[in-house]
Formats: sequence, C-alpha cells, structure tokens
Amino acid sequence: MGDRSGRILARRRRPIESSGSAAEDLRRIADDARSLLQEAGAVPGDLACVGVSVPGPFDRERGLLLRPPNLPGWGDAPVRRVLSEALGLPVHLENDANAAALAEWRFGAGRGFDHVVYLTMSTGIGGGLILDGRLYRGRADGAGEVGHVPVEWDGEPCACGMRGCLEAYAGGAAWAARLRKLAPSDGRVAALAGGREHATPEHVVAAAREGDAFALGELSRFNTFLARGIATLIFTLAPEVVILGTIPTAAGDALCLDPVRKLVASHVWPLLGDGVEILPAGLGGEIGDYAGLSVALEGLGVG
Amino acid sequence: MGDRSGRILARRRRPIESSGSAAEDLRRIADDARSLLQEAGAVPGDLACVGVSVPGPFDRERGLLLRPPNLPGWGDAPVRRVLSEALGLPVHLENDANAAALAEWRFGAGRGFDHVVYLTMSTGIGGGLILDGRLYRGRADGAGEVGHVPVEWDGEPCACGMRGCLEAYAGGAAWAARLRKLAPSDGRVAALAGGREHATPEHVVAAAREGDAFALGELSRFNTFLARGIATLIFTLAPEVVILGTIPTAAGDALCLDPVRKLVASHVWPLLGDGVEILPAGLGGEIGDYAGLSVALEGLGVG
Repeated sequence: MGDRSGRILARRRRPIESSGSAAEDLRRIADDARSLLQEAGAVPGDLACVGVSVPGPFDRERGLLLRPPNLPGWGDAPVRRVLSEALGLPVHLENDANAAALAEWRFGAGRGFDHVVYLTMSTGIGGGLILDGRLYRGRADGAGEVGHVPVEWDGEPCACGMRGCLEAYAGGAAWAARLRKLAPSDGRVAALAGGREHATPEHVVAAAREGDAFALGELSRFNTFLARGIATLIFTLAPEVVILGTIPTAAGDALCLDPVRKLVASHVWPLLGDGVEILPAGLGGEIGDYAGLSVALEGLGVG
Repeated sequence: MGDRSGRILARRRRPIESSGSAAEDLRRIADDARSLLQEAGAVPGDLACVGVSVPGPFDRERGLLLRPPNLPGWGDAPVRRVLSEALGLPVHLENDANAAALAEWRFGAGRGFDHVVYLTMSTGIGGGLILDGRLYRGRADGAGEVGHVPVEWDGEPCACGMRGCLEAYAGGAAWAARLRKLAPSDGRVAALAGGREHATPEHVVAAAREGDAFALGELSRFNTFLARGIATLIFTLAPEVVILGTIPTAAGDALCLDPVRKLVASHVWPLLGDGVEILPAGLGGEIGDYAGLSVALEGLGVG
C-alpha cells in the first residue's frame, strides 16, 4: 500500500500456495489485503485502486492471467474480477517486466528520464520500455521482449524455441544449465554451490569476486552477449538510460557494468552511445512493492 | 503544398544546385515556393506553416541542418531562420526517415495503424518509428537507426564504422560495391547495367525477374539479412506493421516480400509474428510531397 508520492505505507509478502483453484487463491489474497489494511487502520474505501504485477501473458481486456508458470490450476485466472469484487475497488494488471520498468522509472534508477529501457535479468530476461515518458506496450502487449533479441545468429537454442536469443546466453536458467555441464567439479563455483549441479549465476559472481578464473571467464561471456543486446536496443530506441536488474546489479561495476559499458561503446556510434547511462536497478528487494504501486498509479493515469 | 486531409494542392521538384552558400540556396528555395504559390493563386499568408524533410542530422533547437552530404557549403545551414524570414511562416524540420515514416503512416501503407516501423531502403537504410500513434524520436533524435541493427556479429564492415549492420548487407551502396566485385562480367546484371561497375540493386531485381541465377542468389541474401533485422525489431517493438520502401517495393511480393515474411515468421514467436503485416511502401514517387506535408501537420500538432 502506498501513496502517489511513492511512499510505501504498508507491505506484506507471501508466496502463493496454490489450492488448485485460482478463484480460491485470489480470495485469500484479497483477505490478506483486507487484514493488511486493518493493521494499518484503513479500509478498502480509503484506496483509489489496486495494482497487480502478474507473471507472464495476460488478457488485458478481460483481466485474466493466462497460464502462469508454477501455479497449478491458474489457467485463465480471473484476477481482476475476483479481486475487484472482494475489495470493491478497480483493479489494474500489468505484466511483471512492465510493472518493474514503471517502478524503476517512477521511483528507482530511471527517475527523471523520459526514455528508459529496463531489463529484468534473473531466471529469464524480460524488459519494459518507457518511451517519451510513457509505458510502451506494442501490439498485443508484445513489446520489450528484449530477452529474445538475437545476439548470435543460429546460436544456442533458447527455451522459447528460437536460437541465439540474449536469454539463451545471459538468462539465469540457461546459465545454470551451462554451469551444470561446464563448471569444473573441483572448482570454486562448484564448491560455493555445494556441487556444480546446484550452481547459479550468484555462485559465479561470488567466485569471480575471489578471482576464480573460470568464473571470470563466465562473466566475461555474459558481459559480451549482454552488451550486444544493449547495443541493438540503443540503435533502435536511443534511450537515455538502460537499467539492468538482478544479475548485473549483484555483480556490480567492476565485474559487470563497467565492462558492459565499454563493450557497448565499441558497438554503437559515439553520437548514440556517449549520452546513454547504463545503470544497476535502484529498488533492489523492494521492487515488488513499488511495482504494485506503480501499476496502480498507471491505472489512475498519474503522470 | 497540401491540406490537412492529405490533398496535395501544388508541387514543384527541383534538385538543389548549390551556389556554395546555404543561405543563398535557401533564399532561392523560398523564391521557388513563392512562385509556386503564385501559380496556385495563393500567398504565404494562406498557409499555416512550412514542413521541411532534411537529409541527415540536424539541430532541432536551432533549426540548423548539420553537414548534409552532397551539398558543399551547407555545414550548419540555417534552414529554419532563412525560410521563416523569407516566407513569414513558422518552419518545422524533421529528418527524412522520420518524415517519410510520418507520410506513410498518415497517408500511405501505415494508415490506421498505431505502431508502425518504416524502413527506407535505398542507398542507405534509415527508419522511422510511430509508436502509440506518435513519432518516437528518442534521445537526441537518435531512435530508429534500423540500418545499424546488427544482423551478423563481427560481420561485414559498414560505412558507419561498425561491423555487421543491416545496411552493410542490404543498403544500396554496400550492395552496389559488392556487385562491382562479384557480379559475373558476362552475366545479366552486368549486361543490364552496361558493365558490372555500374550495377545497382535495380539491375539485380530486373535480372532476377528474368530468372538469372546470380541475381536470385543476391536477392535471397538480401532477404535473409533484411528478415533478421525485422525480427529483431519485432521482438523489441511489437509493431502492427513494418513498411519497406524502395528496394523491397521495387522487387515486390514474389522476389522479396513473401520470402521475407516467411523468414521473419521463422525467427519470431507466432504470438508476435502472426499479426504483423510486412508491407511495401504505399506512396511511391510521391513520398517527398507527402513527407513535407506530414512534417508540417506534425508541427501544427494535427493528430
């Protein structure tokens, strides 16, 4: 719960333990929201609307969440109707990458910019585009699939079915699969992970901080492909700022952001590249709170 | 000269024969405009404003055309000031790719769409983006440099200094340079051009129509790289329509547009690709007239 100025007034986090029925689960979420309000001495009537950041594809017109991963029974979940009926408030939905982009633009590293490209970089790679000070969604909410911008033609197969996508090189899941095969069994990455079969990009970052050669090579590969994707986005969109979430934020300037800035500068014209800032995300672990608030503000038309 | 509904009421075309002084040349252009108005029984006061489509980079704030190619003496040409003083009207400038995109969106193949990607494809490759029903210019007017979206990493050198740009494969000048080296001296392309040193993409299209194997191979290469560029743009922007000018328009459906549509469909998800139209430009040789009119309407804020 928050206000127009971006103050978070109350928060609650809870994983959804699916009962197998989306309507049932959504009613429980509404109950949770009511009890949070009660704790804060408020009632639903004090609020203007509800903003929901949803994973994956949704039906904007009907307010349905379509086929969310990891939520059995949630096919075509009537998110808007159930929450709206239970709370008596208008409900606005936005996909999580767009919601996070709005949050970073309104309250994080993108504040004050008009042209913002935001990349979520955890298991997969998603994106959100703020262009001319507005969220750009494209046809059928399809814009900003920056994880699938090609960075190697006829390259590695991607989970999406295509080849050579940025996500196939720099997405956390693809990277973990690569580590399971390639990380030396007796190396630092495997040791930090308790076996290379459990290795993730976080272990690579930790091992690279210790100077481990394999981990440094892996990060260099990650930076190379990330820079290619960013260069492509700069030629197309001429953003003022590119904001990188999760993995680059965790890796920091020395291991990731500075090398990426240098590589990007070598791929684009000075005219386009010199003024572009490449920044880590600013909201860290609080992005979820700000994402919901930002979707609500967007729904209210707050500029 | 035209009206808000897109009727061209009078037109005159004249190459600029530079006197060596931009101000002098611009005053002659203004004289030309006055005499055109006189012929049409009008005076400058009948007009709301002047729209100018300019080649290459310009200074929007000061109304200067910077370093235009092929116009000696035109460095930092004061286009807006001279025309505005000479005609007593507000003058609006836009770069030629954006102006052509506006023209195709308002009056050509992009009519009725909200999300339009337009590619000029003649000597070089430029682009204009209409997103959410508005021209998107990006930081420092840099958006839409679609000719420099990478289509092959570490690929052919591009005239821009980078490598692997779409323009290095599918731009007319790069293609002509390739033909000078690779077109068979005794083949159809060379015969149609009067020697391969004069060969251009137009000769390739003509020879391909006759079934010439070399020309068909060249077009297939062109289509391959063009489709890569378009696929990248679709993942980023999710347009409703991609409009291709000049070479693809001349080559037509069988030789270019249909193969490109098939290739693009193989590079993007059905969700993104199925609804995207890939169309030839609609205004043909009249695009210059509509480009000027569209810049004027944009300057007036006509939606």
